[in-house]
Amino acid sequence: MTTDYGTEAIRRHRESRGKVSIASKMTVETLDDLSIAYTPGVASVCMAIYADPAESYNLTNRGNTIAVVTDGSAVLGLGNIGAAAAMPVMEGKSILFKALGGVDAYPICVASQDSETIINTVRAIAPSLGGVNLEDIAAPKCFDIEDALQDLGIPVFHDDQHGTAIAVLAAVINSLAVTDRKIEDSTFVFAGAGAGGIASAKLLLDFGATNIILVDSVGIIHRGRTDLTPIKTSMLDITNPENRTGGIAEAMRGADVFIGLAVADMVTPEMVSSMAKDSIVFAMANPIPEIMPDLAEAAGAAVVGTGRSDFRNQINNSLVFPGVFRGALDAKATRITTGMKLAAGQALAALVPEPTPERVIPWSLDLAVSAAVAKACADAWAAG
Amino acid sequence: MTTDYGTEAIRRHRESRGKVSIASKMTVETLDDLSIAYTPGVASVCMAIYADPAESYNLTNRGNTIAVVTDGSAVLGLGNIGAAAAMPVMEGKSILFKALGGVDAYPICVASQDSETIINTVRAIAPSLGGVNLEDIAAPKCFDIEDALQDLGIPVFHDDQHGTAIAVLAAVINSLAVTDRKIEDSTFVFAGAGAGGIASAKLLLDFGATNIILVDSVGIIHRGRTDLTPIKTSMLDITNPENRTGGIAEAMRGADVFIGLAVADMVTPEMVSSMAKDSIVFAMANPIPEIMPDLAEAAGAAVVGTGRSDFRNQINNSLVFPGVFRGALDAKATRITTGMKLAAGQALAALVPEPTPERVIPWSLDLAVSAAVAKACADAWAAG
Repeated sequence: MTTDYGTEAIRRHRESRGKVSIASKMTVETLDDLSIAYTPGVASVCMAIYADPAESYNLTNRGNTIAVVTDGSAVLGLGNIGAAAAMPVMEGKSILFKALGGVDAYPICVASQDSETIINTVRAIAPSLGGVNLEDIAAPKCFDIEDALQDLGIPVFHDDQHGTAIAVLAAVINSLAVTDRKIEDSTFVFAGAGAGGIASAKLLLDFGATNIILVDSVGIIHRGRTDLTPIKTSMLDITNPENRTGGIAEAMRGADVFIGLAVADMVTPEMVSSMAKDSIVFAMANPIPEIMPDLAEAAGAAVVGTGRSDFRNQINNSLVFPGVFRGALDAKATRITTGMKLAAGQALAALVPEPTPERVIPWSLDLAVSAAVAKACADAWAAG
Repeated sequence: MTTDYGTEAIRRHRESRGKVSIASKMTVETLDDLSIAYTPGVASVCMAIYADPAESYNLTNRGNTIAVVTDGSAVLGLGNIGAAAAMPVMEGKSILFKALGGVDAYPICVASQDSETIINTVRAIAPSLGGVNLEDIAAPKCFDIEDALQDLGIPVFHDDQHGTAIAVLAAVINSLAVTDRKIEDSTFVFAGAGAGGIASAKLLLDFGATNIILVDSVGIIHRGRTDLTPIKTSMLDITNPENRTGGIAEAMRGADVFIGLAVADMVTPEMVSSMAKDSIVFAMANPIPEIMPDLAEAAGAAVVGTGRSDFRNQINNSLVFPGVFRGALDAKATRITTGMKLAAGQALAALVPEPTPERVIPWSLDLAVSAAVAKACADAWAAG
């Protein structure tokens, strides 16, 4: 299936030479058109913005424009394939932004993988933009880059972190309801402590989770480890309260929720069977989950989700990013706050008013999804 | 008139919130759409480019995409109004690129006016682009920035220099024909030694001119001046062969062609009368020419052109930039060569097969113009 889609994707991309183009909102066919859209009339538009910079949001497309910026260092599950090869994903993101959120997104692939250069580039192009979606930038530098840009005056949002986190939060909210759990009493195990894992853990903690264990490729992240990056070390202040040790098998024993953002087939049916009764298993590694849904269910999981569109409960950030930016642009938010992320996750969950094990999350191509997420984000920003 | 267009321009820009938006070349409405335009199918497209970077021109929109980059330091005749206020001009350029050349152009306004930052920003975003149109960047830094980027592997073209120069060359070719002159025997006086003046002088020299005098705000650029910038000093190697001195009045005495890229009303009828018989006067200051066309004609000029669309013979770079980039992108040119510029100017001139004083240059909204310029540029690149 992946192969077939791949072959067809190459054929279609070659036929249309990619996916993104520019459209004009004014015609330039007559002398009058030219005099209004360009010289001499445009000079008055420039001077109106010069007199009041906020007018750039009303007199140009800036207020509806973002850049999707990558350095190509962590593209899908493909790894560090570089800027030029990352372009098809950025174009895909761009047309999803347009189709689902009505947001105009320029795909920008940066030639350097140096954090400072990426930060400086985003700062440099900001006057053309109403927001920046950082994409497919490897951990841990993605954290530093996003942090450094929070003072830019426009929202800068690393989708691999927070898009994932918001979708996970929504799926968790409904899965806990389905299995009659409270978040503060539930135990969560993450396989994968990269951008998506760390951001998801943080957002669950913000929502009320109290017991989260992170597992990376070495094993459980605990206080005895001497090989941790600064971000992983900092996570020890808020995770693994009992300082448990061991590997993924030890981590999963007795846990209520497994959240996989790691690698194919790393979870066995025995590990799922060792979890609490009616466990929740989100196996989101792409394209091959940490454990296949049928195996997880047979081993006792009550709710199973993956990142794939061909299984039920697809937990995917395309549920999130179009609405988050639509809402942020509508509200003229200067950043994406934790309050906005929590509101987005709750709005997403609420789109499935009566969740069942078969349906804990809505379908991403439903336009109602981005509209609800957008409203939640805009309202949360307005509420401060 | 300018005021009316200005008022209408602000109204229309506010109504549509600017002029540029993103359009999608693929639909994303079904699961299959999503699997082809985005994951999982897009992974194969990425890997095809990873294996052969040249495929980015076939499998993404890169080969039809340029950036229109400014720092807002020299916008129209408005001066240094900064990045945000420059946006309406860049959007105008963008929709002209699309309407006339079928080129997708992202308006990018850079937050810094430092040459190094502008150069680094263009280098950083290059993997997303097939070319870069530098726009409204002040002299002399515009020369350094363009020079520094010629090794980028994609065409980098400062329109204020070369767009102007190519349009001037075309108007000169036809005006010389109308007045029965040869370029090598004609004398040219430039008022204004900024980006457009210097590039135009250079291109006329490349086409065979032998006697050009540049005049800046101080007076004739001659070998006795100690106040010259490096670029103006370097122009003394190829201009002012008789080392004439004085002001604009002295420069124009006996000259065949006046080319104004300076300020309103600086040329008197007496100065035009002092030129050679059947003189050629291009008074291109915007919005008010160096001398109004009726005054120049009454003073003896045989051919008069301006930069304005409401007088005949509008010598404007919108005749040039859509076709130059269309041709460069079609030919996959890695830079814009002098040969391409000369070919573009000649092609533009040839679009008026029987020039008259009333018509030495075609009309810029004529789609045949950009097509002819594109073909000339592509052919010139292919010819090496």
